[in-house]
Amino acid sequence: MSTSPGWNQPRTSLFTDHYELTMLQAALHSGAAHRKSVFEAFARRLPDGRRYGIVGGTGRLLEGIAAFRFGDAELEFLGRTRVVNQKTLDYLADFRFTGDIWGYAEGEAYFPNSPVLIVESTFAEACILETYILSVLNHDSAIASAASRMITAAGDRPCIEMGSRRTHEESATAAARAAVIAGFDSTSNLEAGLRYGIKTVGTAAHSFTLLHDTERDAFEAQVASLGTGTSLLVDTYDVETAVRTAVDIAGDQLGAVRLDSGDLVEQAQWVRRLLDELGNVNTRIMVTSDLDEFAIAALQSAPVDAYGVGTSLVTGSGAPTASMVYKLVSRTDDNGEFVPVAKTAKNKVSKGGRKYALRRLNEHGTATQELIGVGHRPLDDGNDRPLLQQFIKNGELLPGWTGHEGVLHARQRHAESMAELPAVVHRLHRGEPAIPTLYEEN
Amino acid sequence: MSTSPGWNQPRTSLFTDHYELTMLQAALHSGAAHRKSVFEAFARRLPDGRRYGIVGGTGRLLEGIAAFRFGDAELEFLGRTRVVNQKTLDYLADFRFTGDIWGYAEGEAYFPNSPVLIVESTFAEACILETYILSVLNHDSAIASAASRMITAAGDRPCIEMGSRRTHEESATAAARAAVIAGFDSTSNLEAGLRYGIKTVGTAAHSFTLLHDTERDAFEAQVASLGTGTSLLVDTYDVETAVRTAVDIAGDQLGAVRLDSGDLVEQAQWVRRLLDELGNVNTRIMVTSDLDEFAIAALQSAPVDAYGVGTSLVTGSGAPTASMVYKLVSRTDDNGEFVPVAKTAKNKVSKGGRKYALRRLNEHGTATQELIGVGHRPLDDGNDRPLLQQFIKNGELLPGWTGHEGVLHARQRHAESMAELPAVVHRLHRGEPAIPTLYEEN
Repeated sequence: MSTSPGWNQPRTSLFTDHYELTMLQAALHSGAAHRKSVFEAFARRLPDGRRYGIVGGTGRLLEGIAAFRFGDAELEFLGRTRVVNQKTLDYLADFRFTGDIWGYAEGEAYFPNSPVLIVESTFAEACILETYILSVLNHDSAIASAASRMITAAGDRPCIEMGSRRTHEESATAAARAAVIAGFDSTSNLEAGLRYGIKTVGTAAHSFTLLHDTERDAFEAQVASLGTGTSLLVDTYDVETAVRTAVDIAGDQLGAVRLDSGDLVEQAQWVRRLLDELGNVNTRIMVTSDLDEFAIAALQSAPVDAYGVGTSLVTGSGAPTASMVYKLVSRTDDNGEFVPVAKTAKNKVSKGGRKYALRRLNEHGTATQELIGVGHRPLDDGNDRPLLQQFIKNGELLPGWTGHEGVLHARQRHAESMAELPAVVHRLHRGEPAIPTLYEEN
Repeated sequence: MSTSPGWNQPRTSLFTDHYELTMLQAALHSGAAHRKSVFEAFARRLPDGRRYGIVGGTGRLLEGIAAFRFGDAELEFLGRTRVVNQKTLDYLADFRFTGDIWGYAEGEAYFPNSPVLIVESTFAEACILETYILSVLNHDSAIASAASRMITAAGDRPCIEMGSRRTHEESATAAARAAVIAGFDSTSNLEAGLRYGIKTVGTAAHSFTLLHDTERDAFEAQVASLGTGTSLLVDTYDVETAVRTAVDIAGDQLGAVRLDSGDLVEQAQWVRRLLDELGNVNTRIMVTSDLDEFAIAALQSAPVDAYGVGTSLVTGSGAPTASMVYKLVSRTDDNGEFVPVAKTAKNKVSKGGRKYALRRLNEHGTATQELIGVGHRPLDDGNDRPLLQQFIKNGELLPGWTGHEGVLHARQRHAESMAELPAVVHRLHRGEPAIPTLYEEN
């Protein structure tokens, strides 16, 4: 499956825990592998003190599920290392997902126990997708959730994703995608540009200045090659000298200066005054340097035009995983009747039965509850918004969720979902989830 | 480049920040792109309170650098989106790294400012590798460093990597590799088995028990299909009942029981007594459930035989990135003479000049200093161990660092490096780096 002209989704089938396939083998042995099953992905709680989470990765996941096939290389490996027996290898050789998948649209806000993804198929099919589903949702939702808070903190000022170097190269590409879904303006990550059609941008590093004999030589080269609209990095040596040199070379059309160290609030203030004095009222000030949502909030009073965010974004700003789990909640018995199931030993107790979800809204269109029906659809009081969308039907991907189109839709969904939540979501300090999750039992 | 029969390294060239290529364009314009340059990757500090870090990812990085090429898809994207001009595209079309790369062997301990990787080539070649180099080293070193602490806490008991579902699917595969380098016994991640020849293992999930009409049905199916040596998960319903059922079905050859919830210390104690009473003295107890190095240390007094570690491992146990940077420290001038260079603006100051590194050892073979020569090799006092190894010479990969062989060598290096460090590295609580980093200036 290709999502862009330049990229083909590699096979995803071995991004899987060993035990998924040995469980499959044992269930093929007992015959239970073919029981119809409902698995749900959800987070038991939000990261400590967070008010909401943002679903990320759904589009990427759906692209990957289409590529969840076992080819010669995978089957040879599983056979040679005796992970599973021949009967199981035969099953895997023909594997393609044929069931239904529902879930929260990518970009949607979620809360504790929101049924973010629901997989309906045989046990065999739903079981072996577990690890891959959780990997994608846990990573991308952690990044989207952190990004959303940064966007809230930044208000109208654009945020640019620049964290590629601080995380695994593939995580970086997924993180860029998740950041843009949550409202980031663009990314430095070129692979994300190629795969998802996301806008990429860049400035320059200290090494570029140090490479040249003088800062003036470096700025002249950059402006001559990239135009006066470029962003010049002004804190390699002395910031004031650099700003004056930059304006001298690029004139009043200089696009931006970037500050990457020191007291950013204080620097931004005097650099703004200096630029204005020099006539560069349209030259923007971009700040970077280990920003997170709290640092962004602290910079809101300073004359800053754009935030470049790196480490904190790609590591989820203290919550690098969304801690979602994937649980069997219902399966058929020998008569073909669905039976709700749940672990009952102490701790980590889950609620059995297929879930349905509405966001309850008041008369002003503000969310007041996450309402979850167990085994049935909760009654819509007229203002409520149903949360579950169908992504895959009888194994076929439904349109609109993947590729560049999926990113655009998810970004729109994020903006709309945020606009609907109570004002408490704009508070960065720790607290309870913005709305409570309530169950409507049968 | 293929590292295993079943896997081909994809192209890595766009795992790169936009600005690396625009800096290249500007440096091609000024002519400085062809200046010989030395870039170094290092961490200014260890994560808060850590005593040491472990270099991870070097083998994976070297495999990726060999695949750092620009093919039609990459060039078409960069041209269409106007990231760079035609002259730069022409340069990239022919790109292959032709310089030298040195660094700490994978698995080696490192400290603040240890020159973990040194890239010697033209500015053009070394600059565009920056993002990819840092992505790999920052991620894999974060995981290897966390894994090493868990191994220290676990003593002689094996640790099994099980965190795939909590992180990006590709990070998961790299994390499994890094964990094994730091001493983990095996992983649940099948892709890591395929790519790197790492041993994979698995037990079963609660869903497998819930799928069947009774726990007995589930255990019977698992034992019949996977043998009595399998590991049965005993905390879906009542743990005591489950243990008795497991022994009833599998007999005294039952491989292991797994506990995944509750008070693990207390449970392990009475489950051990129960197994012994039932005659299953050789049945092992494996514990999982959000373990980190501190939880492992707390379980050392309990009769536990193996630790399954997930979330904390793959998220670096509080430090998801190693925060390494990559800095130009020396480059030639117009006469071809090397000039040390460094940023001088306040904060984030670096030390210019090519680094050389020794681990100073006392007469007992215990490390006492990280000794770094700036611009020259420090004098070896006879016991010292040189730390820099050459990985790539004139663009050619030297043998032993990559693939399965690289993993084995790195695991060995980790064990030897740890044995040489002072005993303080076995303390989990916060403190200063185990040895100081000292500079020997010219």
